Amino acid sequence: MNINEQALKLHEEMHGKIEVISRKRIETREDLSLLYTPGVAEPCRQIAADYEKSFTLTRRSNLVAVITDGTAVLGLGDIGPAAGMPVMEGKCALFKEFGDVDAFPLCIDSKDTDTIVNTIALISKSFGGINLEDIAAPRCFEIERRLKEVCDIPIFHDDQHGTAIVVAAALLNAMKVTKKTMGEMKIVINGAGAAGIAIGKLLINMGFGNIIMCDINGIICEGDARLNAGQEEISKISNLEKEHGTLADALQGADAFIGVSRPNLVTKEMVSTMKDGIVFAMANPTPEIMPEEAKTGGAVVIGTGRSDFPNQINNVLVFPGIFKGALSVRAKEITESMKERAAYAIASMISEEELTPENIIPSALNKNVADVVAKAVADTAIEEGIARI
Amino acid sequence: MNINEQALKLHEEMHGKIEVISRKRIETREDLSLLYTPGVAEPCRQIAADYEKSFTLTRRSNLVAVITDGTAVLGLGDIGPAAGMPVMEGKCALFKEFGDVDAFPLCIDSKDTDTIVNTIALISKSFGGINLEDIAAPRCFEIERRLKEVCDIPIFHDDQHGTAIVVAAALLNAMKVTKKTMGEMKIVINGAGAAGIAIGKLLINMGFGNIIMCDINGIICEGDARLNAGQEEISKISNLEKEHGTLADALQGADAFIGVSRPNLVTKEMVSTMKDGIVFAMANPTPEIMPEEAKTGGAVVIGTGRSDFPNQINNVLVFPGIFKGALSVRAKEITESMKERAAYAIASMISEEELTPENIIPSALNKNVADVVAKAVADTAIEEGIARI
Repeated sequence: MNINEQALKLHEEMHGKIEVISRKRIETREDLSLLYTPGVAEPCRQIAADYEKSFTLTRRSNLVAVITDGTAVLGLGDIGPAAGMPVMEGKCALFKEFGDVDAFPLCIDSKDTDTIVNTIALISKSFGGINLEDIAAPRCFEIERRLKEVCDIPIFHDDQHGTAIVVAAALLNAMKVTKKTMGEMKIVINGAGAAGIAIGKLLINMGFGNIIMCDINGIICEGDARLNAGQEEISKISNLEKEHGTLADALQGADAFIGVSRPNLVTKEMVSTMKDGIVFAMANPTPEIMPEEAKTGGAVVIGTGRSDFPNQINNVLVFPGIFKGALSVRAKEITESMKERAAYAIASMISEEELTPENIIPSALNKNVADVVAKAVADTAIEEGIARI
Repeated sequence: MNINEQALKLHEEMHGKIEVISRKRIETREDLSLLYTPGVAEPCRQIAADYEKSFTLTRRSNLVAVITDGTAVLGLGDIGPAAGMPVMEGKCALFKEFGDVDAFPLCIDSKDTDTIVNTIALISKSFGGINLEDIAAPRCFEIERRLKEVCDIPIFHDDQHGTAIVVAAALLNAMKVTKKTMGEMKIVINGAGAAGIAIGKLLINMGFGNIIMCDINGIICEGDARLNAGQEEISKISNLEKEHGTLADALQGADAFIGVSRPNLVTKEMVSTMKDGIVFAMANPTPEIMPEEAKTGGAVVIGTGRSDFPNQINNVLVFPGIFKGALSVRAKEITESMKERAAYAIASMISEEELTPENIIPSALNKNVADVVAKAVADTAIEEGIARI
């Protein structure tokens, strides 16, 4: 059986990947009267009198909603709400397995921004945080922005920020290995959707040098009438030298390529024009350039989204720890500083001695990462005064 | 510590009563690639091509949402969405412990019928069934009716139908013990809210004799301008002799009293006017009449909602099995016949030999009940042609 057949068989056998259990067995009359009526009335009264207690007396304390509209699922695109659910369930399983965070998958049967925002806001008091997932750009930007305004819990669009954080972590270590200087790097990001723009913004905020965004039309320049709102915003703070041209043009003399685009867009000839190239080719399942070809072209550090090559750059290193940390101090939001510190925390998991071109990022299976990220996030929240404990 | 203090302490220690776990450990690269990317793409594609597969490839197969607006929580009333959550979580814990049904609690931050209906409909593809809970009457009737029209999964307002089914089950056995005849019984239901009306309707559908509904103004008569829509509907099929008067008037010569109202409304003198009275005094935590007093008044069979007296009439005997059965055959709805058969199934758990005035209904802790109810519900769905397997 190939992997698709195996995965399908497993899904058929499991009938879903998550399960909702009681944290206490209910065997006796006393159990029933304490967990349910009449005892349960007391925590209800306590929360009615003090809303903040909902974060300690219910599972909000450790609970994230993983929510999609099914419009940008993996590389499959707009497959609808029900069809997106296997991904959401998988993500929830990862939340629990890697971060001991309870996560519950929800799909919303609408593509309307207002409807999606309102629906999530209306159920948000059931949760301690909201992880948005696989929602198409540019809608995802507005949904996240508006939810942050109306909800009192962290809102985090993982396709944007989870990806940005793990890329930043990998880039921090790749920079060390190649002895580049943060402020002087020319970094080309190909793909100006949700992930690409978020990567660009985070890298700029962190102090990485000149960021060049590319999309299907080549280098993104300020003022291009074809840009959407998110692209226009980043066009003002990227491409400082106002370069024009194709992706190939952008890559000439570049220090790093970050691909969140489509398979086979980059050739070894293009890589060969880079300066000790760092190549993160994260298109899934087929990268923008295969690692061996990038190497032939002269790339020094190569990462992909895949587990069968070195340097797998995978969000699972991020989201369990981000939410674990935010929930642990009941942070109201995930700030830019928390994202930056999370990136440094992940990078720190590879010690100077361990650091090689083929080992810049912890394994996606490393279950210690979430705690390190969580601590960085919680510490930052406390320092920023947005913790509520 | 009294029970309130004990329950509060337990809730503080537990930080919520439910937990979302992965049904498979994720330890290896293979686990990750089968449960998540890239393998998860295949079940997504399968569901995109055939929506029905969402019921086998995701947890919809066994998953119920327990949803409230927080407006009629226990006897506490309108305490708001967040404060209702300890009850919803408790219910979810019971779903799993008694029926092995996964259930997830959600509160909706609105009291507007349209908003509540739309919100639930928009997320309904995440679930295999919807259990509405603690939503105030008369709004609850319209919400349930409209959701049944727009959703393709069972919608069940437990405060109405769960209560009605367990009362019907208890009444079936109380009838046997007292050797009464179903069609000739005069049954007084006090409390004409969601539960009372649902009990009335189910008993009438099952063929129980003359049902008299009472509310705070006494016996409900057709044409009374004070009735709400639900009360008016049942006024047309109940109180066949067009009696007028108080609750005390109604009880004269009655065979059964069913109280879903308030404490201490019934006296032993009132009970003494009944005919071999069956008294189900289910106001919580203090019944309409205490069991010892009802007995002094001459009641033959006495039940309450409490676990510290015989004959505890508790919904937990109903909802886990109802949904377990409906989900097992992927029934689109919970029909009247399914409810009736569920009541007979619960009653059948007490054999003729075991049946006494103090033992008419299984213990709320009896974990075998759900399977028996589930079988009755599933069989009925198949017979009615609404099963989808």
